[in-house]
Amino acid sequence: MKEDLLKLIDILGTITFAISGVFAAMEKRLDIFGILIISFITSIGGGTLRDVLLGDLPVKWMADIETPLIILASATCAILFRHIIKNFQQTLFIFDSLGLGFFTVLGIQKGIRFGLNPGICVVLGTITGCFGGVIRDILLNNIPLIFRREIYATACILGGIIYFILFETSFPKEWLDVTVMLVVFSIRFLAVKFNLVLPDLYTDKKGRR
Amino acid sequence: MKEDLLKLIDILGTITFAISGVFAAMEKRLDIFGILIISFITSIGGGTLRDVLLGDLPVKWMADIETPLIILASATCAILFRHIIKNFQQTLFIFDSLGLGFFTVLGIQKGIRFGLNPGICVVLGTITGCFGGVIRDILLNNIPLIFRREIYATACILGGIIYFILFETSFPKEWLDVTVMLVVFSIRFLAVKFNLVLPDLYTDKKGRR
Amino acid sequence: MKEDLLKLIDILGTITFAISGVFAAMEKRLDIFGILIISFITSIGGGTLRDVLLGDLPVKWMADIETPLIILASATCAILFRHIIKNFQQTLFIFDSLGLGFFTVLGIQKGIRFGLNPGICVVLGTITGCFGGVIRDILLNNIPLIFRREIYATACILGGIIYFILFETSFPKEWLDVTVMLVVFSIRFLAVKFNLVLPDLYTDKKGRR
Repeated sequence: MKEDLLKLIDILGTITFAISGVFAAMEKRLDIFGILIISFITSIGGGTLRDVLLGDLPVKWMADIETPLIILASATCAILFRHIIKNFQQTLFIFDSLGLGFFTVLGIQKGIRFGLNPGICVVLGTITGCFGGVIRDILLNNIPLIFRREIYATACILGGIIYFILFETSFPKEWLDVTVMLVVFSIRFLAVKFNLVLPDLYTDKKGRR
Repeated sequence: MKEDLLKLIDILGTITFAISGVFAAMEKRLDIFGILIISFITSIGGGTLRDVLLGDLPVKWMADIETPLIILASATCAILFRHIIKNFQQTLFIFDSLGLGFFTVLGIQKGIRFGLNPGICVVLGTITGCFGGVIRDILLNNIPLIFRREIYATACILGGIIYFILFETSFPKEWLDVTVMLVVFSIRFLAVKFNLVLPDLYTDKKGRR
Repeated sequence: MKEDLLKLIDILGTITFAISGVFAAMEKRLDIFGILIISFITSIGGGTLRDVLLGDLPVKWMADIETPLIILASATCAILFRHIIKNFQQTLFIFDSLGLGFFTVLGIQKGIRFGLNPGICVVLGTITGCFGGVIRDILLNNIPLIFRREIYATACILGGIIYFILFETSFPKEWLDVTVMLVVFSIRFLAVKFNLVLPDLYTDKKGRR
């Protein structure tokens, strides 16, 4: 049952990331294939970069045709029904945050399987969760969103740290993944809900300087 | 003889991609080494990304010095004789379209050799044909051209689909590569000739919305 | 003793590259994690791209936690003491140029170990020295600095060529690395000191054309 739930979250995450790619691409008025490509890259970019850095190649989506098909279907629906989907921002945001949590945990666990240092595993989790969006923003000629003050990468990094803290305690190992996924989700969700941002480093513009 | 012809098209494609890199870089007024680097990346970028994703490393141009030398020579000539070359836009465009077709087929065939799904092979063909130009545009801080309404990636994708349709029929296998190359070439060529573009998704700006 | 010296230069280079990432990121007013990510990428980006292209994976900084820790510490210090560090531009510039030389030689030697052609080794040296900065500039949505007329990649390329010229002579092999490192350093240092730039290709704007 837990397996089914994780599988479902994986798929929902893939779908929402794909949809976020479609909307970002349409804002820049790309053509239909441009939109599909951006959608695809947003969805699989983070995992791809992780696997390239690890040398775990060919990247997984090449062997597993299911993921590309899910993305293609999601992107097509998002283009066709964009006027309807826009009314479900709240739902999409929840799926997106769940996906962020799921992909972060996926990256951390892959790092552990490769026998890497906890610090590096946190980096891999963050790459898996965030870098699809980073590559999307680069391709669209925006400064990557996650580098702005909104709490996004922060949620992945904090989630990763909590993963290894819990790992060292007597916390039941079989609930580690779901717990950390929900931690990342909650941080991201609460940050947006209550408009939390990182401390501003640049106040000295007017003051101290 | 067919081998010789394909080799020739490979070289012509490499040369025109390198030249297109030079002109794009000069538009942004880069220095001479910047131009050479952009030229190089435009020419080998697509194949490099494909090989990285496949894990077929080190990338081919590292072992085979011929390709880098051809690019270096083409780029140097393009810089020196830029005022003359600009009068051969039509010729360059034909070579560029031939190169696009050739690189697309190269990518598809590599995917088949790696035992990948036809859909993924089409993706690899498109990456090989188009992503040199995408990386060039990113480095030059432009939104990648191929994401605009001009038919470019579209030609690769259609060519790839036709490849696998013909593959399933009794079409002679030894002519598959040349045929699809010419299909990609023709789509691209006719699209530019008759100013064909993809349907505009954004008309609702004034209308429906 | 030479080993210790090279180790020291490696660390100083890593630190200054990390600091340069921090300052570039702060100019674009990124948040704290954005700054850390850019700092990290500036420092290890060149070597990472080289190793990905070579297929020497997982990339080195994943196994060796020392480098990430040095970068994290440098970046944190740079953020905290940014008002003080800004007064040490000259020192930072010297370290940066030394790092450029060191990383260039590192890339060349890795190419040699992989049995690659001298021309490709020079390319690998240039990638190792320069592409951390290139990726930094792309992420920050700037046209990469090294493509501008300042002599930067030029120093790496010239250094690489001199490496192989000396390699063919009776020059003592054990001093080759330090010598070329100093050559790259000197070219870069003198170019900035005396404001040397590459010849301008674009004068024809007003004149000849």
